[in-house]
Amino acid sequence: MFYTDGKLQYPVRVEKPNPIFARALQQAIGGVEGEIRVMMQYLFQGWGSRGPKKYRDMLINTGTEEIGHIEMLSTAVALNLEGAPLSMQEDVANDGIAGAVLGGMNLRHILSTGLAATPENCNGVPFNASHVYASGNIAADMYANVAAEATGRALAVRLYGMTDDPGMKDMLSFLIARDTMHQQQWLAVIEELGGNTEQLPIPNSFPQSEEANRFSYAYFGHRIDKQIPMGRWTEGASLDGKGKFEPMISEPLGGEPVLAPPRPDGGAQTEQVQGGMAVPPAANDPSLGGAPNVA
Amino acid sequence: MFYTDGKLQYPVRVEKPNPIFARALQQAIGGVEGEIRVMMQYLFQGWGSRGPKKYRDMLINTGTEEIGHIEMLSTAVALNLEGAPLSMQEDVANDGIAGAVLGGMNLRHILSTGLAATPENCNGVPFNASHVYASGNIAADMYANVAAEATGRALAVRLYGMTDDPGMKDMLSFLIARDTMHQQQWLAVIEELGGNTEQLPIPNSFPQSEEANRFSYAYFGHRIDKQIPMGRWTEGASLDGKGKFEPMISEPLGGEPVLAPPRPDGGAQTEQVQGGMAVPPAANDPSLGGAPNVA
Amino acid sequence: MFYTDGKLQYPVRVEKPNPIFARALQQAIGGVEGEIRVMMQYLFQGWGSRGPKKYRDMLINTGTEEIGHIEMLSTAVALNLEGAPLSMQEDVANDGIAGAVLGGMNLRHILSTGLAATPENCNGVPFNASHVYASGNIAADMYANVAAEATGRALAVRLYGMTDDPGMKDMLSFLIARDTMHQQQWLAVIEELGGNTEQLPIPNSFPQSEEANRFSYAYFGHRIDKQIPMGRWTEGASLDGKGKFEPMISEPLGGEPVLAPPRPDGGAQTEQVQGGMAVPPAANDPSLGGAPNVA
Amino acid sequence: MFYTDGKLQYPVRVEKPNPIFARALQQAIGGVEGEIRVMMQYLFQGWGSRGPKKYRDMLINTGTEEIGHIEMLSTAVALNLEGAPLSMQEDVANDGIAGAVLGGMNLRHILSTGLAATPENCNGVPFNASHVYASGNIAADMYANVAAEATGRALAVRLYGMTDDPGMKDMLSFLIARDTMHQQQWLAVIEELGGNTEQLPIPNSFPQSEEANRFSYAYFGHRIDKQIPMGRWTEGASLDGKGKFEPMISEPLGGEPVLAPPRPDGGAQTEQVQGGMAVPPAANDPSLGGAPNVA
Amino acid sequence: MFYTDGKLQYPVRVEKPNPIFARALQQAIGGVEGEIRVMMQYLFQGWGSRGPKKYRDMLINTGTEEIGHIEMLSTAVALNLEGAPLSMQEDVANDGIAGAVLGGMNLRHILSTGLAATPENCNGVPFNASHVYASGNIAADMYANVAAEATGRALAVRLYGMTDDPGMKDMLSFLIARDTMHQQQWLAVIEELGGNTEQLPIPNSFPQSEEANRFSYAYFGHRIDKQIPMGRWTEGASLDGKGKFEPMISEPLGGEPVLAPPRPDGGAQTEQVQGGMAVPPAANDPSLGGAPNVA
Amino acid sequence: MFYTDGKLQYPVRVEKPNPIFARALQQAIGGVEGEIRVMMQYLFQGWGSRGPKKYRDMLINTGTEEIGHIEMLSTAVALNLEGAPLSMQEDVANDGIAGAVLGGMNLRHILSTGLAATPENCNGVPFNASHVYASGNIAADMYANVAAEATGRALAVRLYGMTDDPGMKDMLSFLIARDTMHQQQWLAVIEELGGNTEQLPIPNSFPQSEEANRFSYAYFGHRIDKQIPMGRWTEGASLDGKGKFEPMISEPLGGEPVLAPPRPDGGAQTEQVQGGMAVPPAANDPSLGGAPNVA
Repeated sequence: MFYTDGKLQYPVRVEKPNPIFARALQQAIGGVEGEIRVMMQYLFQGWGSRGPKKYRDMLINTGTEEIGHIEMLSTAVALNLEGAPLSMQEDVANDGIAGAVLGGMNLRHILSTGLAATPENCNGVPFNASHVYASGNIAADMYANVAAEATGRALAVRLYGMTDDPGMKDMLSFLIARDTMHQQQWLAVIEELGGNTEQLPIPNSFPQSEEANRFSYAYFGHRIDKQIPMGRWTEGASLDGKGKFEPMISEPLGGEPVLAPPRPDGGAQTEQVQGGMAVPPAANDPSLGGAPNVA
Repeated sequence: MFYTDGKLQYPVRVEKPNPIFARALQQAIGGVEGEIRVMMQYLFQGWGSRGPKKYRDMLINTGTEEIGHIEMLSTAVALNLEGAPLSMQEDVANDGIAGAVLGGMNLRHILSTGLAATPENCNGVPFNASHVYASGNIAADMYANVAAEATGRALAVRLYGMTDDPGMKDMLSFLIARDTMHQQQWLAVIEELGGNTEQLPIPNSFPQSEEANRFSYAYFGHRIDKQIPMGRWTEGASLDGKGKFEPMISEPLGGEPVLAPPRPDGGAQTEQVQGGMAVPPAANDPSLGGAPNVA
Repeated sequence: MFYTDGKLQYPVRVEKPNPIFARALQQAIGGVEGEIRVMMQYLFQGWGSRGPKKYRDMLINTGTEEIGHIEMLSTAVALNLEGAPLSMQEDVANDGIAGAVLGGMNLRHILSTGLAATPENCNGVPFNASHVYASGNIAADMYANVAAEATGRALAVRLYGMTDDPGMKDMLSFLIARDTMHQQQWLAVIEELGGNTEQLPIPNSFPQSEEANRFSYAYFGHRIDKQIPMGRWTEGASLDGKGKFEPMISEPLGGEPVLAPPRPDGGAQTEQVQGGMAVPPAANDPSLGGAPNVA
Repeated sequence: MFYTDGKLQYPVRVEKPNPIFARALQQAIGGVEGEIRVMMQYLFQGWGSRGPKKYRDMLINTGTEEIGHIEMLSTAVALNLEGAPLSMQEDVANDGIAGAVLGGMNLRHILSTGLAATPENCNGVPFNASHVYASGNIAADMYANVAAEATGRALAVRLYGMTDDPGMKDMLSFLIARDTMHQQQWLAVIEELGGNTEQLPIPNSFPQSEEANRFSYAYFGHRIDKQIPMGRWTEGASLDGKGKFEPMISEPLGGEPVLAPPRPDGGAQTEQVQGGMAVPPAANDPSLGGAPNVA
Repeated sequence: MFYTDGKLQYPVRVEKPNPIFARALQQAIGGVEGEIRVMMQYLFQGWGSRGPKKYRDMLINTGTEEIGHIEMLSTAVALNLEGAPLSMQEDVANDGIAGAVLGGMNLRHILSTGLAATPENCNGVPFNASHVYASGNIAADMYANVAAEATGRALAVRLYGMTDDPGMKDMLSFLIARDTMHQQQWLAVIEELGGNTEQLPIPNSFPQSEEANRFSYAYFGHRIDKQIPMGRWTEGASLDGKGKFEPMISEPLGGEPVLAPPRPDGGAQTEQVQGGMAVPPAANDPSLGGAPNVA
Repeated sequence: MFYTDGKLQYPVRVEKPNPIFARALQQAIGGVEGEIRVMMQYLFQGWGSRGPKKYRDMLINTGTEEIGHIEMLSTAVALNLEGAPLSMQEDVANDGIAGAVLGGMNLRHILSTGLAATPENCNGVPFNASHVYASGNIAADMYANVAAEATGRALAVRLYGMTDDPGMKDMLSFLIARDTMHQQQWLAVIEELGGNTEQLPIPNSFPQSEEANRFSYAYFGHRIDKQIPMGRWTEGASLDGKGKFEPMISEPLGGEPVLAPPRPDGGAQTEQVQGGMAVPPAANDPSLGGAPNVA
């Protein structure tokens, strides 16, 4: 169950409202790197948490913090929209030199909300809850959370660079700090659970003897010139301590797939039904011409 | 530029076709944990890669591998649909004991594709490319990739458990092994770049002096009883070596937000325009009643 | 800012887990009539509220309640999934008589979440935040909220009828009661603001003298037989007390629209460019044949 | 079955084409407050109507009117695009002073349609038919329709304010008038059916004795300071005449939820499986620290 | 402007209601091959039509027919839902032998609509209006329409095969006939405009001298074995009479792309900024290892 | 299985980067007329291909080419973003005369990708894989492919006209040429299979004796004035040689639909349940008034 106090977690001030920055801030509300996503992600991870209770508590607790971040950003959007032009005439009158503002706005800020935030990204695309990752696997979830906070902090840093409004910079300096902590927090869970040597591969409950081990630590090359991009991923011990990285040219281990012909009553063309083949093509398939035009 | 040889990276066999397993496999094609997502994610990360060329090459190379995984899974879906019922009559005739099959299918496998795969998830929801994370920040991208491969391997393991078809188990054992490697691969990049102490917080190019440092390593408590869920995230050195974790009760640092009243010509109700307040409410706001019903 | 206590607003018990009912319950989480929608709708309405502060407070307060409803329902989904089959073999073994269960499940409950809720509807379609109505007009918002709670209570009543699990019926009896109140609550705001005579038409701040008054209280007939469906909407005083309902046959007041021909460099076919007309067609347009085939 | 006459319901004139206003008008076509939505909503409500036939007839009749509104607006978009720049060069040449136009356009108006309307909103987001509410409950549907027409009229009023083109203002004055009527129309159905005292709570066919009556007319307070926002919704008779409003502090009536640990073969981490608890935590759970940092 | 008569274009009878067939029929309403799509596609093509008026008239006329097809199918869905189980108990009682029905239904037919159609496909995915193709190029549109009617007729034929209800077969025989005609109709426009020799390539208003003619009639081979799939597309005159088909091995005509390094203030990692290269890599790039593992 | 060489199929040069043209180019990547769509469409058609193997090979081969087109366009987007403004201050400083650039950008190019492409269209709407048509019917698929390439070439031509950058024009001249060929290629398959006389109606495997032949070659008129738009589609032999076009006034062949009343326990209003009718209305239905207002 949840409670509120109607106050902001951190002050939100805007000295010089900027409707285009209001649009940019929307990315931090309804973008895939934004706060609606992490709020719902942490809460759904917590609500569906199976296993040690401490992680449920930690997740729901931090998910609760994130609701307040949406509140801060929604307030920031509304404040950046104070005084925004409502008509084409105002727009040109207000800002004839540096270019019209209205064309760069999320027009729904005028037309749909009366100068307030929407649960959309900076291009007006509504948040889609398929971005809420809650896999039932705590290590997978922690990495999903690190990814969310890493892209989230990159976003906040870019918004910080985009504005020179001191109030907005102050608010963003707080959100950036919280993203710093949240990156740490999720990695701390991995460490607490034994770190990568214990936690990898994810899920670690599947017996690795059942996977095709020959390929578990090989970096596959798919370059036509058979060159392989080298790096830490092609040499040395694997990070879970269970194997050794190696480069490997990828070769087809399977043949050409053969599907049954369509059923006569299945809505295909008659020519498909009659022309279908139940056996693999011969090696010298006549429909494949010789190379006519090699440079 | 890209090339193909028309063959499968690994053999795909189905001994006993199962149209409901065909539907389940769709999650690995068009689900958020699936192969279309990682294919596009690695390719877009590579195509937009700025900085050392080796990462571009590595990303595009692995993205190219993933195209072939979609091919394998699409073949597996089609083979699981061989002999699927096309009509209500067949359905009941085929499977009168264990329950009808047709109701559990993705009906588009019959109606839209003529017994072949779609770029959709197991519930028939089409893949949405907003899941392609390519942030321009290599560390953020690597963690997004780990998350994709961690949820991807969890999915593959669950599919492995769902079926007892030996061909399908064999194919999945290969995909599971590749997911093992790919989890490693992206973490190996982080290690190559100096590991978490160098790479965190992401982005590491933003001067931390500009963030609100007081809050950068604090785990905030939002429990109404002021209890804080304790763990590695509330004590010890932070994982970037730059701070020390601490628990902190979250308190509102900002006040109640105050927005300007609506403009008279802005499409609000007259009562809002007239009732709007340009100044903050007094502490003893009469519209907030005293608690009438405390237990 | 927000807080939690980790407890449920109302007890959630499941006596006999039912994975298909788990899927049905998802509609109340991520469906358009569900709790994510009202949670976000009330919070965004509150966060963007302009005008009397009491409505902001009331909206955020009730939005906070709704977060807990998602929590209850997510718990109910997880409890209905306890013991759900994870494989085709289990499925048939468990439920060979009444029909297989697995085909009727949201397979993501197995494959993506490890037996927990998702922010999706009963067909697995993720919640889309375009359903968050927050118009900046309080009367429009109140009616949007009534609609949400009316469809929400219809949904809860249908779920109540679908199950005979006493725990589920008990939980739903609570949610139904809350929907009863919430329908009332939003209509009470309309009443407090003066009721329909004051509040209609919405927005009431637009001068009605500028609308085409001739058509403001007319019910238009579009039946080819010129019959008009009669009712309260065709007779008596209008509900805002400002007009009188009347039936009216709809007649075209405008002519046939004429657009300029395509630009030669605009990507149309040459035949369109050359065949375009800048003047309206003559009344006896030769391309319109006489009726050749009247019954 | 449906018919047309190729003419516009009301004249559509544009004196000074404005490609950015064309983009704004799209909200009234494909936005959630727009005409595609109401057209489909009224038609689907009518086509699925069960119960008295007069409502079916009325709904289909008005849905038919709305098709013509999309036609009018599509014409208005096309006329506002006459003469729009097709190239970066033209754009700058045309409008070097007031700011470039092309950046503010829906670029699909150039690239995808050849200067014509799309079924999208003002940000280019395509209409999504999940917004078609047709609940099978006539009162719920009527309120959904009022909400659609209230937000629709707010939108039309804002578009009216945005332009000073006399032709566009004239067209919008007609659409605003129709929205006035349609708000009335749906409320007239509620009145005809007995008004709120008869119709509430929706659905009124569910026996209220089965809901948790203690909470049916209580406004819950979720403020941490136990203040409750007071208003009509906390005092006086309820609007259905069946209860009395009261404020009530919300208290958790349920405990902390407890889910079973993950199955060993369910794709979780081993640590979750082993650390899971089948019994509720003790009150003095050691993982919850004492409050370390109370202000 | 539009009119209706409240009657069905063709009789819709259901002898034995089948809720799973109701779900299947949804594909013909809200699927990408369905009637909402063609209705909106033809109307938007007509409303945005530039050039000869006769095509506008023809398109709007046929779009008007399609509205009635949605009406027929919505009626068919509702009739197939008569008597559908509303509860788990009913479901098992009704259909204990052939498998439970409820699991195979679109549960929104029970929970959201009260046994009526939705604007969704057979998996419950709502119609998305991005499928409305109206390109402003009449030949492109005609081919888009042929594609819609070809997939539409394949769908109708598959539905016809799925059911043995005589009423449903009769209705579908009508819709199949209409799809036959509509395929013809759009191709007839191409013929009237001069056929493929005149109309291709689309758009035919672009001077072909400005395209890279060397590649305009070449079928590119991307097989790693340099075999090219041969057919009509590799030999003979092209269908527009302007060229001659030829097979051609695709070779990279461009080099490796080089992007500037990230800006220091752009949110990348420091290592990217420092490691970036402004010049192309040398041919013997040391990060590309020699092939270590050639079979 | 797939391979790459890291090179571009055709050179991509940008002489004068233009961030708004970068946004426009996105339509060719992630728009419905773009390259992600055709890449996935041809690959899924190939992977699910049943019938003659040569079509599978041809489809996969061309799908492989399209991956490289996405690569070219993603490179073009990144190059057009070189030097783009990252802040409001830069923006105004850079381009004070011709209007600000930042407002016209896809802000995700700054905020989400660090100046690189996204899999989105020109308005920032992510690609949705429901656009991947792979019907299992080769003729339907070929027409879907022609439609994709026709709208795709119209798009490329419009982009060509929008820019005057010589590098971009050169790249587009190549893509336009490839679209020319691909339009031909799919139509060549139809010709190879016997042309329209053999292939129509699609699917040609359904016995036309089972369709309602009376209506298979009739163009229906839905004009209220019973005028029918005449053209090739109303006279002469049908294009499949199996019938003769004729105009026909559309008349309702079915009556008014009658649905059962709602079930008492189905969540409708009581008034619907009681007022429902199980028999058709009398011809002189009293709820339909006489025409009161005929002009």
